[in-house]
Amino acid sequence: MPYPDTAEAFVVTDIKKWSDFKKQEVKLKPFEPHDIDIAIDACGVCASDVHTITGGWGENIPLPLCVGHEVIGRAVRVGDKVTTIKVGDRVGVGAQISADLNCVNCKADQENYCPNSVDTYGAPYPDGTISQGGYSSHLRAHEYFTFKIPDSLETSLAAPMLCAGLTTYSPLVRLGAGPGKKIAIVGLGGLGHFGVLWAKALGAEVYVISHSPNKKDDALALGAKDFINTKEKDWAKPWKFTFDLILNCADATDKFNLPDYFSTLKVNGTFHMVGFPDNPLPKLMAQDFAPNGCFLGASHIGNRPEMLAMLELASRQNIKSWVQTIDISEQGCKEAVERVYKNDNVKFRFTLVNFDKAFGKRA
Amino acid sequence: MPYPDTAEAFVVTDIKKWSDFKKQEVKLKPFEPHDIDIAIDACGVCASDVHTITGGWGENIPLPLCVGHEVIGRAVRVGDKVTTIKVGDRVGVGAQISADLNCVNCKADQENYCPNSVDTYGAPYPDGTISQGGYSSHLRAHEYFTFKIPDSLETSLAAPMLCAGLTTYSPLVRLGAGPGKKIAIVGLGGLGHFGVLWAKALGAEVYVISHSPNKKDDALALGAKDFINTKEKDWAKPWKFTFDLILNCADATDKFNLPDYFSTLKVNGTFHMVGFPDNPLPKLMAQDFAPNGCFLGASHIGNRPEMLAMLELASRQNIKSWVQTIDISEQGCKEAVERVYKNDNVKFRFTLVNFDKAFGKRA
Repeated sequence: MPYPDTAEAFVVTDIKKWSDFKKQEVKLKPFEPHDIDIAIDACGVCASDVHTITGGWGENIPLPLCVGHEVIGRAVRVGDKVTTIKVGDRVGVGAQISADLNCVNCKADQENYCPNSVDTYGAPYPDGTISQGGYSSHLRAHEYFTFKIPDSLETSLAAPMLCAGLTTYSPLVRLGAGPGKKIAIVGLGGLGHFGVLWAKALGAEVYVISHSPNKKDDALALGAKDFINTKEKDWAKPWKFTFDLILNCADATDKFNLPDYFSTLKVNGTFHMVGFPDNPLPKLMAQDFAPNGCFLGASHIGNRPEMLAMLELASRQNIKSWVQTIDISEQGCKEAVERVYKNDNVKFRFTLVNFDKAFGKRA
Repeated sequence: MPYPDTAEAFVVTDIKKWSDFKKQEVKLKPFEPHDIDIAIDACGVCASDVHTITGGWGENIPLPLCVGHEVIGRAVRVGDKVTTIKVGDRVGVGAQISADLNCVNCKADQENYCPNSVDTYGAPYPDGTISQGGYSSHLRAHEYFTFKIPDSLETSLAAPMLCAGLTTYSPLVRLGAGPGKKIAIVGLGGLGHFGVLWAKALGAEVYVISHSPNKKDDALALGAKDFINTKEKDWAKPWKFTFDLILNCADATDKFNLPDYFSTLKVNGTFHMVGFPDNPLPKLMAQDFAPNGCFLGASHIGNRPEMLAMLELASRQNIKSWVQTIDISEQGCKEAVERVYKNDNVKFRFTLVNFDKAFGKRA
């Protein structure tokens, strides 16, 4: 059965062969009045995709699975009740594709914490259909999780904003990034480079903390005021009580000496994680928080108002993601996930493109 | 050498015999123009005293050591530059007795996080003198850390407010306790009972979370709206997304299943620790914070404005600590610390009193 019952997708069928992609049909959820069908033109390659297909975040994943949750395409069908999008609009979908929109969290604009949230891939809809991601021809999404992309944003650059962008933008805004604040971004990768771009755009003074001194030039080019190399002995000492917020975009926190990082926070500052390692955090004492009364937290993507505000900010300030494009294909998907896994010169995000070549022109 | 060179104190001389107190002289720091000498009349017995003398927080403590940092007495001598206290005033000192009062933290009313802070006992002054605590005849304190006690507060009830009170009051205020907020206090002991009293006084709706169901009546009598028994299976489920703040006053956090506690927080809520176990926190994943974007933190006592506001609140609302008094003596100190160690029916704070009997009338 072709679309509209299915999408054509590049899927993984075995976590032991997690970079072997096969092109096959995946079932789409039944079309409902608030749904939008998207003919996909681009999809960012998120570290989450790799954590998922390798089984790093849990081996019990539904297979075959098509990953990808930084999707941009054209609306090709809109449900009767859709009011925000019309056929032909260029739209995006991030890491969340549904929620009950009725619970206390949804009503408080916290739908990203809805207990009935559906992830864009690998999650069951209420009818049992497993959501399938954006390495594919089509996506079917609830309009609440479908965002019109401002005209000024180029498709391949906008795609990674849908997950990596929002995941960093949301905690920056919620934790007060703005003029007068000093914010350190840990880890300059897909997430981290957005952390620098947004924190700077929001008016904060931005610093990059990294164990890769070769990233200094990029950090400064992105807008950081200074670069802090954690390979240097006693690296934290000159920065004691400095940062209002550390946004930790690395997914190697399990290897950090967290009290060093904590020591660079101002009193009551926050060390906030958006990159999630496969392994537990290092051993911590309650006392480790006491020298400056700091906080440790994490967040999960962001909400719709934040997504709209982020896209608007990117458009208004002409903010450009650093992206390398790869044509989507079995080989292209393989190269992308393997290089993200190995951290092989990804600067700082892959966007899969040229979907017409793989899937044909879609109406 | 007697006072004013020394104080008479009940000291511990060996952490292996941590409840064997001996009465002997301890050296006082040189008297300076901002100092106040206090003839002590009462001293609360804090769990910190027990963690310290048992070596639980570190075996390298200066000996002989006099603990006690919930001190109330009469000012018997004030330095030339003291402006806030006069001889004869009833005054209190908490867990901090000095700071540089000049650094970025001190200037921001964060003197409790001053890197040159001196704890009330067991810490070196710049001249090398080791601070000695309140199980003694006299205390010499900088006026910034000496607080006039409102007339309406009874001495033995006010003493534990100086540390346990401030330690709970400060994070409650900083984290927004007030009308419309639901706050859970974990652990109903010396700290926790103040947590309930203050949170209620500040206008919040208060809940007590405890593994001791026999504390329910006390929790309700203190002002809690409900009592949550963690011994019940699936205790956290009915409370999902409920609390703005959990103030964890237990020092057994190392034995908690923290994700259960986190699950009861509202989105972006905080699990805040003021009781510090001897052991590390349980293993945590970054992902454990993600279901509601919550935060984990801790704090160290509070600042001077918070101390003054707390005493004023206690006076205005006639808030009464739950205290049992014990006459100070070698035997009295022994009984107090052993019962705190064993958690033997302490409801909820011991205050050592009758200092005149042990030390004579002091001018």
